[in-house]
Amino acid sequence: MTKLIKKMSSNAGMPPGTLISRPGEYPGPVKINIFDFTEDKFTEKDTGSSEDFSSYGKTRTVTWINVNGIHDAGLLEKIGEAFGLHPLLLEDITNTESRPKLDAYDDYIFIILKMLYMKSEYEIESEQVSIVLKDNVVISFQEKEGDVFGPVRDRIRNAKGKIRKMGADYLAYALIDAIVDNYFVIPERLADNIEVIEDILLEDPKPEILQTMHKLRRDMIFLRKSVWPLREVVNSLVRGDSGLFKDSTVIYLRDVYDNTVQVMDALETFRDVLSGLMDMYMTGMSNKMNEVMKTLTIIATIFIPLTFIAGIYGMNFSYMPELGWKSGYFFVLGIMAVIVIIMVVYFKKKKWM
Amino acid sequence: MTKLIKKMSSNAGMPPGTLISRPGEYPGPVKINIFDFTEDKFTEKDTGSSEDFSSYGKTRTVTWINVNGIHDAGLLEKIGEAFGLHPLLLEDITNTESRPKLDAYDDYIFIILKMLYMKSEYEIESEQVSIVLKDNVVISFQEKEGDVFGPVRDRIRNAKGKIRKMGADYLAYALIDAIVDNYFVIPERLADNIEVIEDILLEDPKPEILQTMHKLRRDMIFLRKSVWPLREVVNSLVRGDSGLFKDSTVIYLRDVYDNTVQVMDALETFRDVLSGLMDMYMTGMSNKMNEVMKTLTIIATIFIPLTFIAGIYGMNFSYMPELGWKSGYFFVLGIMAVIVIIMVVYFKKKKWM
Amino acid sequence: MTKLIKKMSSNAGMPPGTLISRPGEYPGPVKINIFDFTEDKFTEKDTGSSEDFSSYGKTRTVTWINVNGIHDAGLLEKIGEAFGLHPLLLEDITNTESRPKLDAYDDYIFIILKMLYMKSEYEIESEQVSIVLKDNVVISFQEKEGDVFGPVRDRIRNAKGKIRKMGADYLAYALIDAIVDNYFVIPERLADNIEVIEDILLEDPKPEILQTMHKLRRDMIFLRKSVWPLREVVNSLVRGDSGLFKDSTVIYLRDVYDNTVQVMDALETFRDVLSGLMDMYMTGMSNKMNEVMKTLTIIATIFIPLTFIAGIYGMNFSYMPELGWKSGYFFVLGIMAVIVIIMVVYFKKKKWM
Amino acid sequence: MTKLIKKMSSNAGMPPGTLISRPGEYPGPVKINIFDFTEDKFTEKDTGSSEDFSSYGKTRTVTWINVNGIHDAGLLEKIGEAFGLHPLLLEDITNTESRPKLDAYDDYIFIILKMLYMKSEYEIESEQVSIVLKDNVVISFQEKEGDVFGPVRDRIRNAKGKIRKMGADYLAYALIDAIVDNYFVIPERLADNIEVIEDILLEDPKPEILQTMHKLRRDMIFLRKSVWPLREVVNSLVRGDSGLFKDSTVIYLRDVYDNTVQVMDALETFRDVLSGLMDMYMTGMSNKMNEVMKTLTIIATIFIPLTFIAGIYGMNFSYMPELGWKSGYFFVLGIMAVIVIIMVVYFKKKKWM
Amino acid sequence: MTKLIKKMSSNAGMPPGTLISRPGEYPGPVKINIFDFTEDKFTEKDTGSSEDFSSYGKTRTVTWINVNGIHDAGLLEKIGEAFGLHPLLLEDITNTESRPKLDAYDDYIFIILKMLYMKSEYEIESEQVSIVLKDNVVISFQEKEGDVFGPVRDRIRNAKGKIRKMGADYLAYALIDAIVDNYFVIPERLADNIEVIEDILLEDPKPEILQTMHKLRRDMIFLRKSVWPLREVVNSLVRGDSGLFKDSTVIYLRDVYDNTVQVMDALETFRDVLSGLMDMYMTGMSNKMNEVMKTLTIIATIFIPLTFIAGIYGMNFSYMPELGWKSGYFFVLGIMAVIVIIMVVYFKKKKWM
Repeated sequence: MTKLIKKMSSNAGMPPGTLISRPGEYPGPVKINIFDFTEDKFTEKDTGSSEDFSSYGKTRTVTWINVNGIHDAGLLEKIGEAFGLHPLLLEDITNTESRPKLDAYDDYIFIILKMLYMKSEYEIESEQVSIVLKDNVVISFQEKEGDVFGPVRDRIRNAKGKIRKMGADYLAYALIDAIVDNYFVIPERLADNIEVIEDILLEDPKPEILQTMHKLRRDMIFLRKSVWPLREVVNSLVRGDSGLFKDSTVIYLRDVYDNTVQVMDALETFRDVLSGLMDMYMTGMSNKMNEVMKTLTIIATIFIPLTFIAGIYGMNFSYMPELGWKSGYFFVLGIMAVIVIIMVVYFKKKKWM
Repeated sequence: MTKLIKKMSSNAGMPPGTLISRPGEYPGPVKINIFDFTEDKFTEKDTGSSEDFSSYGKTRTVTWINVNGIHDAGLLEKIGEAFGLHPLLLEDITNTESRPKLDAYDDYIFIILKMLYMKSEYEIESEQVSIVLKDNVVISFQEKEGDVFGPVRDRIRNAKGKIRKMGADYLAYALIDAIVDNYFVIPERLADNIEVIEDILLEDPKPEILQTMHKLRRDMIFLRKSVWPLREVVNSLVRGDSGLFKDSTVIYLRDVYDNTVQVMDALETFRDVLSGLMDMYMTGMSNKMNEVMKTLTIIATIFIPLTFIAGIYGMNFSYMPELGWKSGYFFVLGIMAVIVIIMVVYFKKKKWM
Repeated sequence: MTKLIKKMSSNAGMPPGTLISRPGEYPGPVKINIFDFTEDKFTEKDTGSSEDFSSYGKTRTVTWINVNGIHDAGLLEKIGEAFGLHPLLLEDITNTESRPKLDAYDDYIFIILKMLYMKSEYEIESEQVSIVLKDNVVISFQEKEGDVFGPVRDRIRNAKGKIRKMGADYLAYALIDAIVDNYFVIPERLADNIEVIEDILLEDPKPEILQTMHKLRRDMIFLRKSVWPLREVVNSLVRGDSGLFKDSTVIYLRDVYDNTVQVMDALETFRDVLSGLMDMYMTGMSNKMNEVMKTLTIIATIFIPLTFIAGIYGMNFSYMPELGWKSGYFFVLGIMAVIVIIMVVYFKKKKWM
Repeated sequence: MTKLIKKMSSNAGMPPGTLISRPGEYPGPVKINIFDFTEDKFTEKDTGSSEDFSSYGKTRTVTWINVNGIHDAGLLEKIGEAFGLHPLLLEDITNTESRPKLDAYDDYIFIILKMLYMKSEYEIESEQVSIVLKDNVVISFQEKEGDVFGPVRDRIRNAKGKIRKMGADYLAYALIDAIVDNYFVIPERLADNIEVIEDILLEDPKPEILQTMHKLRRDMIFLRKSVWPLREVVNSLVRGDSGLFKDSTVIYLRDVYDNTVQVMDALETFRDVLSGLMDMYMTGMSNKMNEVMKTLTIIATIFIPLTFIAGIYGMNFSYMPELGWKSGYFFVLGIMAVIVIIMVVYFKKKKWM
Repeated sequence: MTKLIKKMSSNAGMPPGTLISRPGEYPGPVKINIFDFTEDKFTEKDTGSSEDFSSYGKTRTVTWINVNGIHDAGLLEKIGEAFGLHPLLLEDITNTESRPKLDAYDDYIFIILKMLYMKSEYEIESEQVSIVLKDNVVISFQEKEGDVFGPVRDRIRNAKGKIRKMGADYLAYALIDAIVDNYFVIPERLADNIEVIEDILLEDPKPEILQTMHKLRRDMIFLRKSVWPLREVVNSLVRGDSGLFKDSTVIYLRDVYDNTVQVMDALETFRDVLSGLMDMYMTGMSNKMNEVMKTLTIIATIFIPLTFIAGIYGMNFSYMPELGWKSGYFFVLGIMAVIVIIMVVYFKKKKWM
């Protein structure tokens, strides 16, 4: 099941901006991928933590530095120095429990987002992506290799669309857009799951369905936790608070905003539908119980009096006149039949049968 | 049942503004219907995707271009170029999962609305209508043929009301108004359904009613999803943010706004009433259960002790003095009668009978 | 029970401002009552739809035109022309499903309110009152004859209070105040009903109480639907947005506002209390059920084992040594007594008895 | 139990500002207590409705007029005239169902508060206190004698603290503070009650606890109704909207505001805890039910089959071979023992025993 | 269990600013710890209530006075006089039920925070910390010795980080940061507890789990009560309302703000998850009940008719033809077998077996 929270308290009491190398989590050296392009030219480079970053951002080319791994404190400090980033920003990058947020510094902005996948049918995997936009440089930090930026890379490589014609702000938008577009996979999967549950509930509700619903509910809580603050982030980008995004790019961000709201909308709808399904399950269970109880009541109520009558004539008193009657046995059987008929009529009237 | 969501993720990673032709969904060529009128003159024309749009909007006449179908990417791009529309706008038109929204561009505004019908008793059908208002041109895009604009067309043809005297903004208002007026059919239908459910619940609640309530609930969630953002759209039109609507038209938009709020109000009322009915159903079920249990308890509690007594005197011990008593049998029957009377009195006191 | 909604969709697609005569609902000619007064003089006149309205509002006298009936479209149009009212305003008057609202036009304001009565014990009757205030003329439109303005008429006739000394705005205030004052009757009635329910629940909850609570709940939903928007209306009058109300009158409107809030407060309180009562009822029911089940369990658990023992010695095996014992019968009776004692002690310990 | 509402509608239709003498409720003449002081001098006077108020407020002394009783309309009108108070204000004083509110007039402010006591263990008594602050005069109106101002009177008499050094605004603050300080008694009592309920629920939940919880819930609703608007009142005093409170006094009002928020906080906490307790009670009940049902099921399920077997061998067929077997009886007893063992193992496995 | 509230009403009616010595609660003299430092120099001093505070704040050094104990009214008044603090501020320090809040005075600000520990597994301990920031002096008041400031002291002693280079505002930030960082321990512990509960619920829900969930719920309510107002406090520091925090420090406060929001976020998530678990528990219980009932119904429904048949042939009528049949006994056994088979098929079809 989706984990509730990760450890957050290990930094307590440290001076702010303290970076801790956590090589254990994702071992191996950090891989860095650098794109450097103008409308005409384009270079791509795979490098590591030994790279010298001081040359980037000085020329007119747009540079995208993608860092795959945040566990190498030394590397982060080196990048921080090269581009003049605040120590707190670097600390935020390594805190993978950060909420999506936008911090505007004097000449750069810092965005934290969550990249979401469906890891298995009911488990959402979340990876934190931090993006720094400064002049004509975009630096993105991921927890590990593997991301949703493939199509963006292709568009840069092939000069598809406007991505090579516009500045670093458009590149930053393209990354955010790629992340948000990918969110749609999750509500679609959730919608499928909800419809499966709905069908099961209408046909044959089993207790196991309850756990499935609980998992689904947890997934939604988890997703909402990522999407709600994201909306604020994108909204403040749209409002143009930072000044680093050009007007022509803000139109595109408005589109991202609409997408975010659409995901949130879907989530709210699911929540309502799921809580309705929960009610339906509960009521379905108590309907079943009712039916069980009715069966028991009908059988018991019919046969208990009959058994009593049979018990009467099973008594061994020496003087019981009916026992000597020739047709006593059949008379008693007749009385029993009458009782059964009366009972059945009563149950029919009560709509229990 | 009303579908939860349609596929939304197929565009993920594409450059923004990418249009995809989806001829499969609504096959056949796109039909276009063009009205061109002033107060005195009026022409109407049915055409197709081969139409040349470059001449519209240059003269003083008011033009309404109604496009029935959004699956022809080439046509959309052609229209986009003819009127200088932003690529993102065209992408929004083809995304039929968009929320109702208003996007104001420099010299035109773009509105997305949902046209709603009751397809069957509990299934609401939704069709997206996109409206572009630019100077004296109104372009409307529908997913397929068939709409609620019939009366508007008649008013144009017959110069009924003010529609031919006022500008394109009034025409846009008339389209929005026609869509919103049609919303009222749905709450009316829902209200009828709720009243039917209410009657059934008061007379004879059956488990099937639960599914009907679930469908109704889903319809409301669906309707609210369309109406809530609509209210924002109309509200920002009323506030006159765009400048394209004249003051004389804004008074009419205020009326549309009131209607929207009225629909929302009705929805909220239904929601409250429906959740009250749900409670009533649940309690009704447990009342029934209570009655069943009481019957069982009364029968079992009366007859189990009697059967026990009969069992006693059915034992075959060689020395059981009562068996030899002459009136032993009648004495035991008397004791049983006394027990029954005590029980009945007890149940009467407990108000179980 | 209070009706959920009235038909609203019959106007769909019509040009805005279209008036439809609905003579069927409240047949008969429309009665009009006109007061015309200054501090010193006063005339009162009962007239009909043939009245010529052009002379009113031209002199310095304050005029109150009260129209009893909104089904005569011709009359409404005549009044609209005489005082220069917008066609949409006239349409709103005839739409009896409008929410309470305030529309400010250039030189007049238009207010829609709901006049509420308790028609029977649990049925609230609502009648729409529309008020137009223009210079020194107040026009009020009611659905039918019979209203809560009697005391206001008396104050005008007898020159009681300030009503003859102050302008048309004070008259409009007096009408609104009369309507809102009458609202208090309903929470009082509801409070009485709630207290009756409370007593019944504490003494002897019957399933019928559930329907009563449902009706009460529906009444509250209905009342809230009228009162919430009313508050906004009065509040915007208090804020003096319109300019037609003098400062000296606004102080009185503030009082109306306080009253509205007080009604809303009472409603919220009732809602909380009623939902608490619902819980209490549910729990009361399951307590009763518990008691029933306990009785059954005690009886069954005591007697089933005893009956089994009796059954054992009722078997007809040819060799059963106990049957021959002299005191076998009494020994078995003794064992049974011991079992009963053990059971009773167990139930006492479990607090089931 | 705390009363839901008092009669509010008796004034309906009257001209605003109409005062009604209600001598019935608190009979006897109205007692008035007047303090008049500067830093050095101090006079105290008990008087009645015959007092002449025209001399107060003309000198530099601070005057506090405390009126114990609001049922004498003549007296209120006399005070109103003496200090130039608006008729609506006087009407508000007599309407004991007013919400706490602050009305700012040109040169005086008018505050309505609720003085709260615990009348009995679960019954909160509320008394309305109205305070008028004008220049150097404070007039307070109570429904009846007996209040929480004792310590304030002592501080004036003994010149304790700053009360004699500061103006009438500080005196008004001191009265408000005394009222709000007293509110704390109620949450403390409620907290005690909640903890008692908690203990009972954990030990031995009885149905009676439900009524206690209902009373507690009602008390909280009642208290919240008094405290929420109070917060707005104090807040607008702190914001200094009126201008009658000096900055040095506003610091103290900020403290009152904190106290109000603290009471509200406590209430919200209690509400959450109480609703948790409700859930616990409900679940506790259904746990008990479960246990009862299990006992019944175990007993019935074990003995019903055994009784059936005994019944078989109690049949009187002439040819039943087993009956003649020498060890038939013991063989049957053995089979029964085996059945019991199987059943017990099954129940252990199911964790019902 | 975490206590609901402490006594708050003991000050009622006292003049504002009254300090009461409460030596009983934490006996012994108050220990004071004073740090005095610049970037180069540093002195540390442990002293008591006899300290003379008049010399601090006059020089350019940054001074941190940490007071361990708030029960010595004389000491508080002495400190108040030395630094010119308002009497209400001193009263707030001693009221340990204050909400977290920020009061800005002319030349100093006053902050109340809660220091939280996990005392035992489900009991949160809260200690109030008050911080005064004035020029280059920070005074902190704790209820008793023992705090979370250890790492801050080390950083001062060892000149680690920027703490010795920056001013008193940074020191105040460092204290707030240490407190908030420590909050993370609690959601982590809560998350662990929730996951344990989840596992238990999925495996074997026992009634005892209910009390654990209730304790957890109470803890969350308690934590939220501390964290919500804290967020407002930190937010108004970030907005720089006070002017005492330099811009370079505000960046760090923004970080504290993010942490606060993160804790709140976690709390909301837990709340949702816990309420989902509650539902799961309830449904789990009623599933179990269902299973119990089904078992009872199956056994009873199968054996009650069989026992009845056996009872029939246990009757002692003199003329019962079947009794004489040679194979009567086996015939009856066969009929019983058929009945059992029919029953089992029926139950299989109903999915009860």
